[in-house]
Amino acid sequence: MNNAKTILTGDRPTGQLHLGHFAGSLRQRVALQHDNQQYILIADLQGLTDNGNSPQKVAGNIPEVMADYLAVGIDPTKTVVCLQSALPALAELTLLYMNIVTVARVERNPTVKSEITQKGFSRSLPVGFMTYPISQAADITAFQADLIPVGDDQLPMIEQTNEIVHKMNSLTGQPLLRHCQALLSKTGRLPGIDGKAKMSKSLGNTLTLSASEEDIHQAVCAMYTDPNHLRVNDPGQVDGNVVFSYLDAFHPDAEKVSAMKAHYLRGGLGDRACKDELEGCLQALLAPIRSRRNAFIQDKGQLLALLRHGSEQAQNVTQQTLVQVKRGLGLPVMF
Amino acid sequence: MNNAKTILTGDRPTGQLHLGHFAGSLRQRVALQHDNQQYILIADLQGLTDNGNSPQKVAGNIPEVMADYLAVGIDPTKTVVCLQSALPALAELTLLYMNIVTVARVERNPTVKSEITQKGFSRSLPVGFMTYPISQAADITAFQADLIPVGDDQLPMIEQTNEIVHKMNSLTGQPLLRHCQALLSKTGRLPGIDGKAKMSKSLGNTLTLSASEEDIHQAVCAMYTDPNHLRVNDPGQVDGNVVFSYLDAFHPDAEKVSAMKAHYLRGGLGDRACKDELEGCLQALLAPIRSRRNAFIQDKGQLLALLRHGSEQAQNVTQQTLVQVKRGLGLPVMF
Repeated sequence: MNNAKTILTGDRPTGQLHLGHFAGSLRQRVALQHDNQQYILIADLQGLTDNGNSPQKVAGNIPEVMADYLAVGIDPTKTVVCLQSALPALAELTLLYMNIVTVARVERNPTVKSEITQKGFSRSLPVGFMTYPISQAADITAFQADLIPVGDDQLPMIEQTNEIVHKMNSLTGQPLLRHCQALLSKTGRLPGIDGKAKMSKSLGNTLTLSASEEDIHQAVCAMYTDPNHLRVNDPGQVDGNVVFSYLDAFHPDAEKVSAMKAHYLRGGLGDRACKDELEGCLQALLAPIRSRRNAFIQDKGQLLALLRHGSEQAQNVTQQTLVQVKRGLGLPVMF
Repeated sequence: MNNAKTILTGDRPTGQLHLGHFAGSLRQRVALQHDNQQYILIADLQGLTDNGNSPQKVAGNIPEVMADYLAVGIDPTKTVVCLQSALPALAELTLLYMNIVTVARVERNPTVKSEITQKGFSRSLPVGFMTYPISQAADITAFQADLIPVGDDQLPMIEQTNEIVHKMNSLTGQPLLRHCQALLSKTGRLPGIDGKAKMSKSLGNTLTLSASEEDIHQAVCAMYTDPNHLRVNDPGQVDGNVVFSYLDAFHPDAEKVSAMKAHYLRGGLGDRACKDELEGCLQALLAPIRSRRNAFIQDKGQLLALLRHGSEQAQNVTQQTLVQVKRGLGLPVMF
């Protein structure tokens, strides 16, 4: 493990994971787990920040997300998968950091601002949602993570975290916390099957990792292409054409996709043929994931046992950071 | 222990405790500890909410406050004295409650509003300070306290706590958390020796419990009386006269104080005589406290060991509440 990095990622367990997660993050995590110390946090507490009134939704999806991880190839002997609410150090660090971050600063966070609008919170904004970037900073620093795979919409979180690292290190006069860096995903965000920019369960435009053969078939049939490409021989548009975005994201043969694009652009390649190609590729990708997932989800007790084992490992690391921070601040460490 | 109540009080360790604490709270706690289950929280985390940049001030005062408690007669075999930062369940419950309290609600808290003005925070308001009522609700509910001795300025905190209790109990469909009641102090707030409404270290108008004989003498000499009572034979004012406020608060013989007031009002009783009476009474009150305190503060290791023992007892209680809340929300309890 030369040049090995400590990597933290995670997901809010508010639904099953889908192809968007797979393309943007999960397959990268499977690759990263071999040469790095990787932690994956099932962020149930963060899931509750905008689901305070439906905790059962968050709780119920914890084993679902764990099954998704195992199904795509996250190996619990290589990656530590752990549960946020099982790690008290994360809550304790969050409260400590809240004293060195101003209300004005969290209100200025552009990601939180746009999410508040998007979720229509206005006056009903929960305190936990407004302050979740501080909680994320606690997560990242507790694991002493130095590399955080994120989309570019999450860069303000990294910035906020490093501000807290800087402030806490100057306050204690010791380099207790590690600065972190974003690892930006090479693939852009996968669009929804309807062509909307974001794949999201609430928009009903996703394909979950447990999608059946028929689900996949239906989704590809319904997929948004070029609405002006009426006859096969007409030239078609590739930009904004979801079928080609998906072929780019999932087809194993990039040269073939490139040739198809050229053909489509000049005319003569029909949507049906493209969709057939994509469907074959998605069926091949998802069949083994679905079958593994079906097996894992049968035994939720076993999924939680694996999660407990990972959380025990994470407990050691995060507790150590908490103790260092408390000592740095001069607070007694009692037990 | 028939009709025994569970009582929670506490102090922020931001300085030594003083006569104001003694009159308004400490001696009541000494009385309450015999027939109730009393917990006292040294609220270091809350102390940090407006001392984020000077943690050593908070940390350094933890043993000082513990010594104050023991000196006035808090008995650690009767009262559980514990440290807020040693109890992770308090931080964890705080984060859970933050998801069911809106930003608008905490911004509306009148106590926090007036403290924000008083401390001159404006744009530099720390997140932890704005949200500390949620943290207090976590403290109160974690101990399942039903009686909270407070001044009337703290009533909004009790109201906020009961809102959270109500919401959490309806959310989980179980009466997991106990509603609490304020126990309002019979004695009003003790004024500073300069006549200002509040005794406060930053105003330099306090007498700490460790005050020396000479400190007490000086303080009584400097004490604010009736500025218009120029000659002994003039009628004097008792209202707003700090000497009489202190005689009311500390003199063991209420009848004698009553007679002195009548005499002072009609004229003929000098400030000197009143101050002598008060000084005698304060010297008698504080001499044994000072001497016990001096002995305790010699051994900070022993003070912290006592605090650790109390924190272990508190850990059991608060952890149990956290587990109940997690189960109520459906969250896994891993270890």
